[in-house]
Amino acid sequence: MFFNRIANRLFVHYSGGGIRLKVTPTFLSLSCHSNGICLHRCYVIVNIKRSKIFNSTSNLNRNVTTTVNADDKIIAIQEVTRYMIQCMIKTGTSESHAKQLADVLVAADIRGHYSHGLNRLGMYVRDIQEGICMKDGVPKILKENAASAWVDGNNLLGPVVGNFCMDIAIRKAKEAGVGWVVAKGSNHFGIAGWYSIRAMNEGLLGMAFTNTSPIMYPTRSSVAALGTNPLTLAAKAKNDTFILDMATTTAAIGKVEIAARKDQTVPDTWGVGKNGYVSNDPAKILDGGGLLPLGGSELTGGYKGYCLGALVEIICGVLGGAQWGPHVRQWMSTAVIANLGQCFIAINPNEFAPNFENRLQEFIDAMRGLKSVDNKQVLVAGDPENEHIALVEKYGGIPYHPNQINYAEELAKTLGVSAMITKSTV
Amino acid sequence: MFFNRIANRLFVHYSGGGIRLKVTPTFLSLSCHSNGICLHRCYVIVNIKRSKIFNSTSNLNRNVTTTVNADDKIIAIQEVTRYMIQCMIKTGTSESHAKQLADVLVAADIRGHYSHGLNRLGMYVRDIQEGICMKDGVPKILKENAASAWVDGNNLLGPVVGNFCMDIAIRKAKEAGVGWVVAKGSNHFGIAGWYSIRAMNEGLLGMAFTNTSPIMYPTRSSVAALGTNPLTLAAKAKNDTFILDMATTTAAIGKVEIAARKDQTVPDTWGVGKNGYVSNDPAKILDGGGLLPLGGSELTGGYKGYCLGALVEIICGVLGGAQWGPHVRQWMSTAVIANLGQCFIAINPNEFAPNFENRLQEFIDAMRGLKSVDNKQVLVAGDPENEHIALVEKYGGIPYHPNQINYAEELAKTLGVSAMITKSTV
Repeated sequence: MFFNRIANRLFVHYSGGGIRLKVTPTFLSLSCHSNGICLHRCYVIVNIKRSKIFNSTSNLNRNVTTTVNADDKIIAIQEVTRYMIQCMIKTGTSESHAKQLADVLVAADIRGHYSHGLNRLGMYVRDIQEGICMKDGVPKILKENAASAWVDGNNLLGPVVGNFCMDIAIRKAKEAGVGWVVAKGSNHFGIAGWYSIRAMNEGLLGMAFTNTSPIMYPTRSSVAALGTNPLTLAAKAKNDTFILDMATTTAAIGKVEIAARKDQTVPDTWGVGKNGYVSNDPAKILDGGGLLPLGGSELTGGYKGYCLGALVEIICGVLGGAQWGPHVRQWMSTAVIANLGQCFIAINPNEFAPNFENRLQEFIDAMRGLKSVDNKQVLVAGDPENEHIALVEKYGGIPYHPNQINYAEELAKTLGVSAMITKSTV
Repeated sequence: MFFNRIANRLFVHYSGGGIRLKVTPTFLSLSCHSNGICLHRCYVIVNIKRSKIFNSTSNLNRNVTTTVNADDKIIAIQEVTRYMIQCMIKTGTSESHAKQLADVLVAADIRGHYSHGLNRLGMYVRDIQEGICMKDGVPKILKENAASAWVDGNNLLGPVVGNFCMDIAIRKAKEAGVGWVVAKGSNHFGIAGWYSIRAMNEGLLGMAFTNTSPIMYPTRSSVAALGTNPLTLAAKAKNDTFILDMATTTAAIGKVEIAARKDQTVPDTWGVGKNGYVSNDPAKILDGGGLLPLGGSELTGGYKGYCLGALVEIICGVLGGAQWGPHVRQWMSTAVIANLGQCFIAINPNEFAPNFENRLQEFIDAMRGLKSVDNKQVLVAGDPENEHIALVEKYGGIPYHPNQINYAEELAKTLGVSAMITKSTV
């Protein structure tokens, strides 16, 4: 049986303890933390054997894949999108919402953020099937001013809420210079960068933030109380882009999992074991511990990462009147609705100094042109993703590990939709 | 002679090399980096002997002083302010501008950020005396929309530009929900928190950002190319405040200097020696090296700190059409005008979910109430500063080290103003 087969593989590879597997009629989820975890920037299940990819050292953002395995299969973008939309429609999700979700997940895979793409489809399928997330409807503007809006996401899919909010921010930025929209009642919205890029494509600077399930240990705390709380900024330069999309924790839990699998220790700044003590042992971090904020411990500046996570929480959950901090539901829990808080900002560069795009290009060129240490190219935010986008262009589709293809085939079978057609192997 | 006396003390204490001393008719400056440095969060000259204070372990933000030395002298706030204003007026600065500068510097000292208070007065005196910064005038709005403004600081004192811009942001936030103001042509504006607090005192959320002289080594770079590029968020809770004010580097150069003085090594995440190689040796960091971004090296997530520094640069220097990155003048240089870029944001919480202040209070209480590791209280941003403010209230004035008092007396003599009257000793 598929689930058992996958499960067996998982348990073979994960000896660190603390990993729980949940099987439902239509999907499989993995939780690596006794308190539940947020997997922002995390590789789960189907990427379990991508060690070759994870070893890439050419990336500034180590969560981006820029190489392929010999047995990867190429799926055309249109085909992945078709498959995802049909899966969601089969759960009863409206076509428009299914398409919005598929677009965000496919964009994640195209950008090399495989953790947030096809890999997450099952979670959204489950949320809809269990009735913990709404299949159709429209977010509602609760309050509005020239540059601001407060939105109730009405418990719709995260991308539906996110697109709705960012479109308001874009409109307001074009009219008033800046648009600042905060939502409550949202769900996981995929890669934060999707929304900042949406603004960037309209000639604006885009920013987005979301709170997430608690996994980060605030400085001095013995318990997890904030999420990975990512932030993003996207801006277009003359011939280029600057696209930052980062969690406010030092590392992704997925990186800790990889170290566990390889029996390697991790740096001091990545995580803590049970009760909040810094640990180099991935097994301890995964078994009842969690992540450290960017910077690591107090001595190495982790209080700044903690405060950045708190900043994201304040402009999302607190400002939006959503759940916040330790009250956000545990990762993968469907006991209560997520009620996430999210913030979307668009800024019109034409309202400031002329020729922004030229200047940003000069800035990007200057950074990339810095004399480097050890001949490693100095990068700017988004460069590793661009490398993966080029890979997708080269192959004419997205390279997926066979495990991901198998997973998608099983999900297709369960839901009664056509499996994805493989274009070619690498 | 005063300058020599101070100089002798300095050279006795600093054996790490690379320190340069500049003496002008009216003040003395210190540069600890062959390429020049930005001393955001840095203790210089008159704090040189405050080792007892620096050793405080009760602080989340280690740059805040929350203890006093036995020989510290207490000066009433009004008296320090009077002294600073008179010093600046003697250089020809207009009274209004002198007062605005004094208010920011005194606020820094009250909050325990001694590096940015009285300690910096000489720098502003010099900038005015050398004609590299304007004595009087008004910043100019170059472009304006409902929620945005682009301002030319007209090379006026940083606090004059900052107050002007934040006041516009406040007005726009009250009218349009958000105010987003970017300035070019500015100068060092003191603690960033001053401006966010200004918005907070109007019932808004305040944010501020500034670029600074290059001292941070972007990930993989062998040269410094960004400043400490601080950011701040201030927000009022029901009975409390959240005031984050942080540089995007892991540590302040002042902390490296202290380690050098004590012959201690520093953590891997703090700095690099010449050519960008990570170093634990403070002497190497101070002698032609520099600071690492928040997170440290690439392995420990430093690329995120680098990208945050770049984010600040993009919304300040690049968006504002000011100097940016490696083109910002070297620290303490008066060869060219600073032309710094700064960004000021105000957000009206009343435009979002009702009862923001209550919810923020609950968030603050939840964070402080987290079960802690090793019985160290979990703090929120601004707590260490509040501890110092309480200290100032207790003593009825600001405690200054005798070296600072001596320095101020010499400056008073040189400029022909009355020295500060000491209220008492500790």
